[in-house]
Order: sequence, then C-alpha cells, then structure tokens
Amino acid sequence: MVKRKILLAIADGLGDRPIEKFDQQTPLQYAKKKNLNHLAKNGSCGIMDLHKAGTPVGTDLGHMILFGYSLSDYPGRGPIEAYGDGFELNKGDVAIRCNFATIDEDWNVLDRRAGRIRKGTSELAKSLNGLEILGVKISFKEATEHRATLILRGLGLSDMITDTDPKGVNIRVRECKSRDGDKKSLFTAKVINEFLKVAHNILKNHPINAEREKKGELAANCILTRGAGQMPNLEKTTRKYGFRAACVAGESTVLGAGKIAGFIALTDTSFTGNMDTNFELKAKMALSALEDYDFVAVHFKATDLMGHDNNPDGKVKAIEVFDKMMGVILEKLGSLRDNTIIALAADHSTPCERMEHSGDPVPIVISGPGIRRDTVVEYDEISCSRGALLRISGNEFFNTLLDYMELSKKEGN
Amino acid sequence: MVKRKILLAIADGLGDRPIEKFDQQTPLQYAKKKNLNHLAKNGSCGIMDLHKAGTPVGTDLGHMILFGYSLSDYPGRGPIEAYGDGFELNKGDVAIRCNFATIDEDWNVLDRRAGRIRKGTSELAKSLNGLEILGVKISFKEATEHRATLILRGLGLSDMITDTDPKGVNIRVRECKSRDGDKKSLFTAKVINEFLKVAHNILKNHPINAEREKKGELAANCILTRGAGQMPNLEKTTRKYGFRAACVAGESTVLGAGKIAGFIALTDTSFTGNMDTNFELKAKMALSALEDYDFVAVHFKATDLMGHDNNPDGKVKAIEVFDKMMGVILEKLGSLRDNTIIALAADHSTPCERMEHSGDPVPIVISGPGIRRDTVVEYDEISCSRGALLRISGNEFFNTLLDYMELSKKEGN
Repeated sequence: MVKRKILLAIADGLGDRPIEKFDQQTPLQYAKKKNLNHLAKNGSCGIMDLHKAGTPVGTDLGHMILFGYSLSDYPGRGPIEAYGDGFELNKGDVAIRCNFATIDEDWNVLDRRAGRIRKGTSELAKSLNGLEILGVKISFKEATEHRATLILRGLGLSDMITDTDPKGVNIRVRECKSRDGDKKSLFTAKVINEFLKVAHNILKNHPINAEREKKGELAANCILTRGAGQMPNLEKTTRKYGFRAACVAGESTVLGAGKIAGFIALTDTSFTGNMDTNFELKAKMALSALEDYDFVAVHFKATDLMGHDNNPDGKVKAIEVFDKMMGVILEKLGSLRDNTIIALAADHSTPCERMEHSGDPVPIVISGPGIRRDTVVEYDEISCSRGALLRISGNEFFNTLLDYMELSKKEGN
Repeated sequence: MVKRKILLAIADGLGDRPIEKFDQQTPLQYAKKKNLNHLAKNGSCGIMDLHKAGTPVGTDLGHMILFGYSLSDYPGRGPIEAYGDGFELNKGDVAIRCNFATIDEDWNVLDRRAGRIRKGTSELAKSLNGLEILGVKISFKEATEHRATLILRGLGLSDMITDTDPKGVNIRVRECKSRDGDKKSLFTAKVINEFLKVAHNILKNHPINAEREKKGELAANCILTRGAGQMPNLEKTTRKYGFRAACVAGESTVLGAGKIAGFIALTDTSFTGNMDTNFELKAKMALSALEDYDFVAVHFKATDLMGHDNNPDGKVKAIEVFDKMMGVILEKLGSLRDNTIIALAADHSTPCERMEHSGDPVPIVISGPGIRRDTVVEYDEISCSRGALLRISGNEFFNTLLDYMELSKKEGN
C-alpha cells in the first residue's frame, strides 16, 4: 500500500476560448508555462466538467465539487460565505450575504456600497450582532470592504425568501418576501424586514456614521440582503473519508467551501486575489501544510478576474504567475516529492469573450509517483483532451484523487 | 442484420501503474504481446471504469459487471462463491463462506485452516449437509482446500449478521450477532450459533478427524463463517437478453458470477489460476464453446496474482502467457473468424506498487468484423486511451457488446 499526499492547485476560471490575436489559441495555449508543462509531462492529463458538459458553475459550487461534494449538496452562497467569514453553522441556520449601503429617508438606495466603506465596519457590525428579532437570534459580522454576513438562528426558518438588495440606485430597498408561500418563509421574511428597520435605526445614529458624514462621506445606514441559504446536514469530506486537509487561499468563498469540507483555512492579507498576490508565500504555505496534511488545495484567483475583464493579455500574465507559483512548489518539494501527487485543475472556465463563467470543460493533470504517463507534454485545453484521463466529471476527479490517497471504498470483494 | 458472436477475454487485475525499471512503463506497455496488439489494430480501443472512475471493485463485482450487472445487483461474496461451488440459490437464501478450522475445548482457534486440510473435506461436509436447525435447512459443501460453503434456506432469514471467524489464532470463535437488531437477523444469528455447536459435536467425533489426529495432523473440528450474503431476485443476463453463454475459468468466484448470469461453467483442474495454467486447453475450450454459444468469456488469473505480489517481471510474463492464449485462439478461429468479435478487458487494475485493486481504469479492445478501426496499434493503458471508444463504464462496455450481438433494445422508434 502506497498512501500518497495530494497537492491540488486550482487556477480559478482558467479555461478559455480561442483568442484571435493569439492565432486562435487560448490564453493557456499561448502562455509560457514550463512548470505546468512539466507536470503534464509526468502524469495523466484530461479535461473535466465540474458538474456536467455545458453547465457553468459558480466559484463556490466549483470548489465544493473539487472538495468532494455534488450539486445536490450545494447550500447556496450565503452559508459558504458565512463559513469563509468564520461562522460555523448548524443545520437549519439561514445565512445571508449583506452590503452596508446608503439610503435616504424614503429608503431609496443612494449607494449600494455606502461609498465603498472600508473602515469602521467592524464597529457597525458589532452594533447589530446579538440582536433578537421575533425570537430569532441575529449574528452579524463584517466581511471584506462593504460586505457582511447575517446569520439567523432559531426555529421555523427557511431560505425561500427574496433579496432586499434592489441591485441599482434610486430604487427603494425591496421588501423581503416569501418565495414559496410557506409559513416558515413568510416568518423568515418578516424577521428580515423587521431586522432591516431595527438596523437602520441603530446605524443612522451610530458615531461611525456621524463621523463619515462630517467628512462628507456616505453613511452606512442600511443593510441590503441577498443570497439566503440554509445549511443542510453536510458531513465534512475529511470526516467522511478520513483524511486531514488544508486550503491555502485569499478568497473567502474558497476558504468557506474548504471549511465546509473540513479543510483548515490558511490565508494571509498579502493574498490579494489579483496579479500582485504573494504567490511565493502561497507556495510556501502549501508546502509547509503538506508536512502535516494529507490533502492541500492551493487557490489562485487572477486568471478568473482577467476572464471577467475580457483581458486576454492579462490572463496570459496571470497564468504565467500561476506557473511561477508551481515552479516554487516543484523546486522546494524536497523529500515530499516521492510521496506527493500534484494535480492541476480549475473550478470552471471564464472565457474572455464571454466575461462570465462558461460550461467549457477545464484542463486537468494528475502528476507524480504512481501516475500513468501519457503522451501529453503541454498543459492546455486541447493538449489535455488527448490525455489518458480523457473526459471526467469533477466528482470522478475527486474520487480518483481519493483512490491515490488509498481512501476509496472498494466495491465488491 | 449481422448477428455476431462475442469472445470476451478477461485478464484479471491487468491494469497497472508506471514501473521505474521499465522506464516508467506499465507491465502491459513493457510486455511482448503481438496477439493483443493485433486485436487492438483491428478494432476500437478505449479505457473502462468498471463502476466509476477511482472506485476499485472486487473480482466478484468486476465480473458481474462484465456479465451484465451493476453495483446495485451485487449480492455479496457468499452467494457468488456458492454459485461457483455448484449451488443454485433461491431468493432469500443466505449463503456464507466457511473455513474448516481447528479449535480447542474452550473454542479458541488453533488454526483457521485446520492445517490447510485438503483431503477428506468432502466426507466432513457430507456429515453436516442436510441438517435442520430451528426449522432452517442447512446445505453444506466443501470448496477448494479448507474452504466450504454454507446455505441457509427457510423463512425469515437475513444476511445482516456478523462473522464468527475471528481472523486470528488464540482468539475464541466469535458469536454470530445481528448487525441491524432486526428480528430476522437475530433469528439467523441464532441459527448460525446453534449450527456451529452442532457441527463441532459432529466433526470432533468424525472418523476423518480421528485419522488426522492419529497422523499428528490438526482436526477440522470447527466451522468458521464469514461474508454472509442473501440472494436478491436477479434475472439471469442470458434470459434477460436472450442469448446463450459460457464461461471458461478456473476460479470459482468467476465461475460463480458467470452462473448467476446464466453462463454455463467450463473448467478443468489444470486451470491453476497461476502462470502454469493450461492456457492451450482454455483456448481450445473457448473455441469449442464458440461453436455452441453466442457469448464466451475466458478468464486468465495470473496477472492479478503478480500485481498482488508486487512482481512486475512476473506480471510481464503473465501477460505474455495471456498473449499466447489469445494467439492460440486467433490461430484456430477458422471459419468462426468472419462472425466473431473478440473483446479484451480486465475486471479491475491491480497495480504492483499497491498490491491491491485500484480505481485506475483498464484498457479495452473490441476487435473484428464490423468494428470501427481506430489508429491504436498497441494494447496498453496509454495507447488504448487514444482509441475510438474513449472512456466508458463497464455497463456501457457490456451494452456495446450486446448491440454487436443484435440484442440491444432500441429506444424510441
């Protein structure tokens, strides 16, 4: 029995489509990427549909699948962000993503992000945290910039409620409504509407806002809610299969998906989620985690951003930074080399021309000791499609990694 | 309509991983195998996950899938072995694998295999066969060496019971217990415990054992039970699809899976399950069966053994014996050639480095008249992954063979 460790490197939104000025190559085909190619050369390649061919997935679901779950396990964005922000949810809790926003006295939205507020959100959040509305316990915590997370805990709650965020300015804050007419969602909507009123009364008189107004800044005097999700009874992946795992990332969505799966979150403020991220520290943290954990995921965000921005040159550069990160890992792997399988994947494609996620499959590699060597020598969407893994689902990809960790369940005898 | 016959040759545990001294080739890539390559060249190749990518399967389930079933049909090892030993089970029968063992007067196990008893087990088995315990009919039959099969037939039985085999020596024989607390399993456990007492009383006084003790050999004075399985209501594959089939093999597990599927069992004592198996007779029996049957499976075991033994050189040799067997078949196919499709498959991978089954896919070939010719000219894990069949499941593989036999069900109109 050879029980191996897995290092899974995820380049967010990596997959793309032909770019005319790259002579119809994708950014990944066009980029210089000797380390990614090295991994492709020493293993099995393929392409992967996270859920199913032609179905785009979000970063949250994409990572949940890479961490061992399926679409049917998806709890909604709210709970995933809540985990990313450090909450531990119980079954039945409703998690909701929030913005601090600015409204006028008629509840018209003046700014959905309260002047992109950065400072003072911790104090503002504290003034709302711990409230009790209609017998429901309110937990409220700031997240990055103008964002925050709201958790409702109590009996008879439901996530089948509408958003109050009107997604535009000079529109009134929407009333929260039931989406299914059920008693539970009607009650939950009532709690939200009452919470928004109470929160407005507290926030509009908060010293932080008085100060902001003095400086001519917009007051963060309202909470907008969206993406309610209720926590299902999900067993941690690490517990289900019996291994120890870590996730190195800057983005709270990814860290949240990891935490749901039982991965410890390793992060740093220098993980910017952009091209200037501290990739050396990411590599270093991943290598250090490999000493203690069986499965280490390391996430790289900039590739996705460049896709969303329709910036093919930027995407090429981002891929080359990702390649450098893998270079540091390969160089410093040391004695872990004999026992570590390195896998490359993406959570979805974000083609520049679409500027959004697509259902195009993503290229994958499983490389290292014990892995069959196919004839592919380059890591890209086309080369990998001729690899020995062929075309598999995200679920099959994870199951394959489990098998190399000696954690798969043998069926039959 | 061209109704073709199928000869399916199965090399047990064939799939493997890179071997360093073979320059990172698998044993199959490294082996000389002109007949297997000939088949690859004249047909379509691919790779197959018996159940699902990354999930290892046992020899029993692997063969059931190759013979037309799915994981959900799996009845447990007990019933499959029982079929291999010549029993025909009814729905509800509980089949249990047994060892003849040696215990002392306190029921401590002295030897789990009664000194690896080989002779006299037929007489010992006869002394237990036909008993009735608490209204349940006992069928008991010897199998190879120290092994035997026990069948319980009666109302209100269940296979949710524990093993009595303690899997070690100087430990007491375990009491059989219910695994689910249900009335049926509680009753079945009671029957087993009672049977073990009765069997001990009969065996300890049996003349065969008196003789063994006189010679200083261990008495086969106890039965240890394990792997209880209850027969589900499985329709024979041959009946479901309407064809006649035969299975040429030495291993009772494979013959048992075949019998469940409705294949007649063709075997010989010279089928040793090892390198020295009588491959010429296997080839001859397969060819002869092709005259009378629509579908003939021929099984070769040594490849799996070499994987379990971490013996890459032995695995290469075993593959070369398998290749010779296929050479005999190809040479003597004669007039059957125009009408016979030869398929190559494996029931699972048994990588030398793991010494156990793995979830790595296995290479497959479907070759002969009417089969598309792809560009693959070698039968191995990597070459076949570039074949025209791509990556399919065991279920899809069987369904494809059915279609070439003109037995598939057309859906729609």
